[in-house]
Amino acid sequence: MKRQELTRRAFLTTASAAVGAATVIQAQIPQRLGAPRRQYGERSPYETSSRYFHESITPGTGSSRTPMQDLYGIITPSALHFERHHAGVPQIDPQRHELLIHGLVERPLVFTMKDLRRFPSVSEIRFIECAGNTGSDHAGRPGADPQRSHGLVSCSEWTGVPLKTLLAEAGVKTKASWLVVEGADASRLARSLPLTKALDDVLVAYGQNGEALRPEQGYPLRLLVPGWEGNINIKWLGRIQLVDQPYMTRDEAASYTDFMPDGKARWFTFVMEAKSVITRPAGGQVLDGPGFYEITGMAWSGRGSITRVEVSTDEGKSWQDAELNTPVLPKAMTRFSLPWRWDGGETSLQSRCTDDTGYTQPTRAELVAVRGLRPGPDGFNHYNGIKAWYLHRDGKLSHE
Amino acid sequence: MKRQELTRRAFLTTASAAVGAATVIQAQIPQRLGAPRRQYGERSPYETSSRYFHESITPGTGSSRTPMQDLYGIITPSALHFERHHAGVPQIDPQRHELLIHGLVERPLVFTMKDLRRFPSVSEIRFIECAGNTGSDHAGRPGADPQRSHGLVSCSEWTGVPLKTLLAEAGVKTKASWLVVEGADASRLARSLPLTKALDDVLVAYGQNGEALRPEQGYPLRLLVPGWEGNINIKWLGRIQLVDQPYMTRDEAASYTDFMPDGKARWFTFVMEAKSVITRPAGGQVLDGPGFYEITGMAWSGRGSITRVEVSTDEGKSWQDAELNTPVLPKAMTRFSLPWRWDGGETSLQSRCTDDTGYTQPTRAELVAVRGLRPGPDGFNHYNGIKAWYLHRDGKLSHE
Repeated sequence: MKRQELTRRAFLTTASAAVGAATVIQAQIPQRLGAPRRQYGERSPYETSSRYFHESITPGTGSSRTPMQDLYGIITPSALHFERHHAGVPQIDPQRHELLIHGLVERPLVFTMKDLRRFPSVSEIRFIECAGNTGSDHAGRPGADPQRSHGLVSCSEWTGVPLKTLLAEAGVKTKASWLVVEGADASRLARSLPLTKALDDVLVAYGQNGEALRPEQGYPLRLLVPGWEGNINIKWLGRIQLVDQPYMTRDEAASYTDFMPDGKARWFTFVMEAKSVITRPAGGQVLDGPGFYEITGMAWSGRGSITRVEVSTDEGKSWQDAELNTPVLPKAMTRFSLPWRWDGGETSLQSRCTDDTGYTQPTRAELVAVRGLRPGPDGFNHYNGIKAWYLHRDGKLSHE
Repeated sequence: MKRQELTRRAFLTTASAAVGAATVIQAQIPQRLGAPRRQYGERSPYETSSRYFHESITPGTGSSRTPMQDLYGIITPSALHFERHHAGVPQIDPQRHELLIHGLVERPLVFTMKDLRRFPSVSEIRFIECAGNTGSDHAGRPGADPQRSHGLVSCSEWTGVPLKTLLAEAGVKTKASWLVVEGADASRLARSLPLTKALDDVLVAYGQNGEALRPEQGYPLRLLVPGWEGNINIKWLGRIQLVDQPYMTRDEAASYTDFMPDGKARWFTFVMEAKSVITRPAGGQVLDGPGFYEITGMAWSGRGSITRVEVSTDEGKSWQDAELNTPVLPKAMTRFSLPWRWDGGETSLQSRCTDDTGYTQPTRAELVAVRGLRPGPDGFNHYNGIKAWYLHRDGKLSHE
């Protein structure tokens, strides 16, 4: 499709009417000095965007969702990064924290945080997404806005030591083929990680968006497993054991498997496939009336880089290529945008993305045909169907 | 120079000795649930990195410095972005804030924040640096650590509307050649900006690192003038007037000019030239003893992308190419690193960078030969000489 043309005059209706200058200038200049400098800044008291979660009788267990509709660019503010905890957020003294590497290694080793910071480090902008993100769309009861539908994903600049460097220090024995990676929180969350991935692009990360990890993201140490489901990106990382088989831990046997229509379950479905969502205009928002709007949103793929995002503004009849904001990075959020003029009619807004493996985000119907519907309210893990927001004549957008 | 070789065993001395596993594991697992989820996160109470500033009888006037030695990657946490204020930080209600564009235009226009968010937007990772950064090195009294010597520079992902889009809305008259851009703080800070730059890559920015601008960086609206001295990146942006000449405002006539040895001053020296600094190991830090260390730091250029960073560990006799962490972006911080083994002897650590115009960061002597020394304690603006940190036998690093 030819990209929608917008003339210079097209935006004008979005600005206020032309005005005489003098009165406006005077109204804006404050008459007194502002606040002093401070050591560590805070956001404006006018800003109230927040993570969303259900209150619970076990407040340390559960998830909170990133306000996707409020984000700009590709970096998620650390204060708004989604959470998923199984026994709350431990407060760990970094001077006492240690990482143990043992099992099928030549030399079991313990690393302090100070040790780890002396190793060669890298920084990478990467997303982390919970396997259960957008499961409610699969279940047919989609979230009312981008936060509730897609908010279990975030993107940060992570800094740490490549795991392969630490494994080389310990000396991996030839019998080893898997790792058990374990968190130092009270839930002792553990997962089995294939050695091939550990030797590829996994980081033992201590930095997030330029400073130390936030407590909710594993302070002082977490595993970053680029492109793989969030649960295996072990937070508060305390132990890595080299083993010769997957260990079928609770979080890869009782949870984080994918039921199929024949009653069997897929397991070790690690990779988060390509997904996209329009975040503005989107559910929960209201358009002021016909005229120009920028459609924007985010796309990401656990397999690599996003190469294309298409947007439909006519209920899927036709699709236009959106612009991808640079840099487009592998296993990172990619911001897309498309200029658009709303004619005031009812329609839906949808996006679908393609990654550099050639894979294109499927429809819900295509996914359901293969994987069926799961009984119960939650949908299955690894749902990545095309998301539609419905625009009504009164300017309101909703999820159905 | 051939890059220093490091064998697999090279890192081993940095880790603690091999240990039996059982005792270690037990020591690390907390016995009780952690903290619950929360709407907007905070850093760990164990983290105390902060901006540095002198106390002052006019606390709203002056600068604060980013703790460069504590940063990871290329994103500066918004809470630690350097500050420079002339009348403190105004608290502005975004619902009442407006941007006026007037002067030599077809249609004077006023934009509300809501108007601006409807325009096509872009996000870009860019540094902002105060023209006065590293002036104390020029003056011969260098700062004791990376924060005090180089801390008036930071790097964020900025989001906003290209200024050229707004100028097209207003319709620039053919007589216009400059803009006067003015802040809505009590100091009414104003600068003259050439129209050519305004039509190139300038943003009217409302987003910083994924959320709204922080108050200290111009909430709710600032100008981002990529690669140009910080002062012209007008914060709390309220007014843009199209004019036919530079207006010689206070901050480009009485300040932000560069005295030359013949008593004349250069003015409108907008671009921040290529600069680099090693942030670890660096002044104020102490090495534990001979052995492996990663040398890391940051390089940036207002003219484009960093293409090369060289590091000398032998007082400038020889130079090795450092590795540049990807992505390397134009007019953004570039993180560099070099593995290094300290033999315990006295030496200095230096870095020099080259950008994609072919320009290489000069020595202090080369700069002084051309520009001389300015009387007084402050040095001149736009100093970008090579920085050396001196390493003593006791492991301490200092600035001289």
